[in-house]
Amino acid sequence: MTADAPRLIKALLRRPCDTTPVWIMRQAGRYLPEYREVRKRAGGFLNLCKTPELACEVSLQPVRRFGMDAAIIFSDILVVPEAMGMELRFLENHGPQFPDPLQDEAAVQKLQAVDESAFDFVAEAIKLTAGELGTTTPVIGFAGSPWTLATYMVEGGGGGDFRRVKTMLRDRPELLSELLDRLSDAIAECLNAQIKAGARCAMLFDSWGGVLSGEHYLQFSLAPLKRIAQKLRAAHGDDTPLILFTRGGGLWLEDMADAGYDALGLDWTCDIGDARRRVGDRVALQGNLDPTALYASSEAVRREVRAVLESYAGGASSVTGHVFNLGHGITPQTDPDRVTALVDAVREFGAA
Amino acid sequence: MTADAPRLIKALLRRPCDTTPVWIMRQAGRYLPEYREVRKRAGGFLNLCKTPELACEVSLQPVRRFGMDAAIIFSDILVVPEAMGMELRFLENHGPQFPDPLQDEAAVQKLQAVDESAFDFVAEAIKLTAGELGTTTPVIGFAGSPWTLATYMVEGGGGGDFRRVKTMLRDRPELLSELLDRLSDAIAECLNAQIKAGARCAMLFDSWGGVLSGEHYLQFSLAPLKRIAQKLRAAHGDDTPLILFTRGGGLWLEDMADAGYDALGLDWTCDIGDARRRVGDRVALQGNLDPTALYASSEAVRREVRAVLESYAGGASSVTGHVFNLGHGITPQTDPDRVTALVDAVREFGAA
Repeated sequence: MTADAPRLIKALLRRPCDTTPVWIMRQAGRYLPEYREVRKRAGGFLNLCKTPELACEVSLQPVRRFGMDAAIIFSDILVVPEAMGMELRFLENHGPQFPDPLQDEAAVQKLQAVDESAFDFVAEAIKLTAGELGTTTPVIGFAGSPWTLATYMVEGGGGGDFRRVKTMLRDRPELLSELLDRLSDAIAECLNAQIKAGARCAMLFDSWGGVLSGEHYLQFSLAPLKRIAQKLRAAHGDDTPLILFTRGGGLWLEDMADAGYDALGLDWTCDIGDARRRVGDRVALQGNLDPTALYASSEAVRREVRAVLESYAGGASSVTGHVFNLGHGITPQTDPDRVTALVDAVREFGAA
Repeated sequence: MTADAPRLIKALLRRPCDTTPVWIMRQAGRYLPEYREVRKRAGGFLNLCKTPELACEVSLQPVRRFGMDAAIIFSDILVVPEAMGMELRFLENHGPQFPDPLQDEAAVQKLQAVDESAFDFVAEAIKLTAGELGTTTPVIGFAGSPWTLATYMVEGGGGGDFRRVKTMLRDRPELLSELLDRLSDAIAECLNAQIKAGARCAMLFDSWGGVLSGEHYLQFSLAPLKRIAQKLRAAHGDDTPLILFTRGGGLWLEDMADAGYDALGLDWTCDIGDARRRVGDRVALQGNLDPTALYASSEAVRREVRAVLESYAGGASSVTGHVFNLGHGITPQTDPDRVTALVDAVREFGAA
């Protein structure tokens, strides 16, 4: 790492930096009028993901508007299963759907192995975005976790009580493990492509790890995530920080801190000061304001941003290893002015 | 407490009993064909709650079929806001709705104070059920937590991101506190009525406490719950055990264990052995098999029941203070035969 690395990268690697960096999950998204305009032009969500110029444009928007400390590349976690041969549909107001979900061994065997070239469109979008931003503001690459992708692929969509995939876990654990292995390989390829194209760090979104029991989480979500971290580490060394976010993972932070990632993302249910005490200085922490705080007044936003920063600092006048973020993605209903209030407050109260 | 108290009561008070007692949340429910038949006769969910003979009948069904160690009275947490004057509708396949949700101070001020007599229909159902069961099998009374009821009353229904009630929490905390105070009084009256009618213990369902940050949970969910426990304790002494269940509350068990309850319910994300080590012998623990385990084979059910029991025991040959349950309510899609497998496994592997 060079001395003039961007503050996000320094913070993720727990090195001193001038102040607390900030970005927010889903910052390139529907709450921004300029995003909605580009999306209309693109004619659909997947088209937007797959047109590098447009994906670049929406990735840059929140950096321009709010001065975020990073752009996260605009894409979707489900491009990995799609690259493996599964038909994917995004229906307006219905969330993603796989019309032909994985039901049996034959379907799992039919999934295609993919290499980096399957993700050329993401790589190209990252090249364009990194080219626009130069060296001061990094681009974050990302992918879904194997378990999270498996839930969508087996259920056919999101949410619910995960009946199919949890029944596979219990009655056909070897088949689920086979699926998770194949996904881990494809995810590593997807992230390799992104890092080679210029992503300065990579984040794994384990959106549905928190619906598992602790024992199942360790076996079916965290173990594959460890293998991905090992692969990325072997390919890219220690200067490309890796972030792991398991929504609802607050009970398992100690295990997550030993999984080979540089930083853990926290949702808002977990006090960030408690989290810091639990994991010590093994990892940086990213988070963790409740996204619904942005529905309240700017004064409330300011107060809660300050509370998160103070909880992390725990009374110390200088801190390392904190990246400010929401505890989950920003919602489409949010007023962008509240994001301005958030960033202003991080700049005012962020620790050196 | 007399020496021949039922095993559920003994376990909740952390006294030795012959084996681990078992009941399951929503055990009187749609997964049972005999329940669906009575419900059809009743002509709607609320009618069933308010017709004591029928509520008694469905409460007894799982005790008869599975030999459960308790009946939980068939009712609904939303009868409290209804008694306070809010119109409540249960639409088929849509969940509960308050068509006229609480939006402002005037609406909160208009809520009626209620006394025990508002819950005569629940009390009567408990009298009938306790009369049928005699002294060997207790009846559990219950209510929703103030925070959980407030979410329904302010949002107008369940789920979502709790935009309205969380915005009230941040921008009008004094109004939310006023609402929670009124709810606490009404909930205590409802539980007083149930205990006087013959409920041997009472459970508070905090279904939505887990969507709060830690700090907000302590202030807006747990603090009112403490006041309810104090009131019940003052009225009924120490022999009527109180159970607190906050879904998603695994991070806050230490605080919950000091809230004046005899037992904590756990969802399945929290390992019950870890929970026991964290809270020591201050409280009994109830739980915590993932309800989706009942979608798998009977062999898997048996294996996971045993794992929960062994985790709680932690190698000890004799344990106290464990009540076996699911980590959340049983789903309508569950095959009743899997519940038989569950109860059989608790009887086989339960510790003395």
